[in-house]
Amino acid sequence: MKGKEQIDVYKANEDFYNAFESLDAQKMEKMWLKENYVQCFHPGWGLLRGWEAVMASWRRIFENTEEMHFILTEVQVEVRGSLAWVTLYENLTSREGNELSTGSVLATNIFERRDAEWFMIHHHGSTVMQPGQLSPSTFH
Amino acid sequence: MKGKEQIDVYKANEDFYNAFESLDAQKMEKMWLKENYVQCFHPGWGLLRGWEAVMASWRRIFENTEEMHFILTEVQVEVRGSLAWVTLYENLTSREGNELSTGSVLATNIFERRDAEWFMIHHHGSTVMQPGQLSPSTFH
Repeated sequence: MKGKEQIDVYKANEDFYNAFESLDAQKMEKMWLKENYVQCFHPGWGLLRGWEAVMASWRRIFENTEEMHFILTEVQVEVRGSLAWVTLYENLTSREGNELSTGSVLATNIFERRDAEWFMIHHHGSTVMQPGQLSPSTFH
Repeated sequence: MKGKEQIDVYKANEDFYNAFESLDAQKMEKMWLKENYVQCFHPGWGLLRGWEAVMASWRRIFENTEEMHFILTEVQVEVRGSLAWVTLYENLTSREGNELSTGSVLATNIFERRDAEWFMIHHHGSTVMQPGQLSPSTFH
C-alpha cells in the first residue's frame, strides 16, 4: 500500500542518490534543507551537524571520487506527517584514480517536507560486512 | 531552548541505554513499539526489520555480553509532532568473558509517541574510528 506521499519520498530518495552519482556539489545542495539541524554521518566518519559542515563533506567526497554508482536494494519508506525516513542498502562501486572499490552500506535517510517538496535532513551510512542479500546478477 | 517534548524524548533515549546496560530483554522490549515497521541496525550487522527480528537480536546480544556501560556524548534531540530523532556518540565499554572492549558508536535513534509515551522505532548504530571528541576524564 503506497500513497502519494510515500512515492514522493521514494523519488526524493532516488534524487539524492542521483545527485550523489553526479558528483556535482550544487545538485547535492538542492537535496538538503538549508538548516543548522541537518546532519550527515558518512561511513567511518564522525558526526557532522549543520549545513556548512555537511556541504563541506560532500565537496570533499566529490573532489576525491571519479565515479560512483549505486544499486539500491531493500528500500523501505515510512511517512508521518511532514517527516519521512527511508532505509536501504547502498550497493556501490566507486573509483578514485585507478582504484575501484565495491561495498555495501546500510543507510538511514530522514526527509522533511517543506511546502510540497521533500528535503533530506539526515543521512546515516555505515559499512556492512554481509551484502544485502545480493545475487551477483543484481550488479550491472 | 528545550521544550517538554524534547526533555521527554531525551529521557526515553536515556531509558533505552539503561535497558541496554541492564542486559534484560524484557526491559528492552518495553522501549520499543510493537510494530512490524520497527528497525534495528547494529554495528556491522545487516538490517533487521519487524518486532520479532529486532527482539531476537537483543536477546542474542544480551546472552553474549556480561557487562555493558555507556557514556553518551553530543546528544542532540529533534522533535516534529509525534516523531523524534536523537543522535549521539555511544562511548561504550563491554565485556564478553575475560575480553574487555571499548569503542565509539555513532547512533541515530528514532522515537514515535503513542499517547503520552515515546517508544523507539528505529536504532542505527555504526562504529566510528575517531572517538567523539572525548577527553580521557570523560570515562569513569
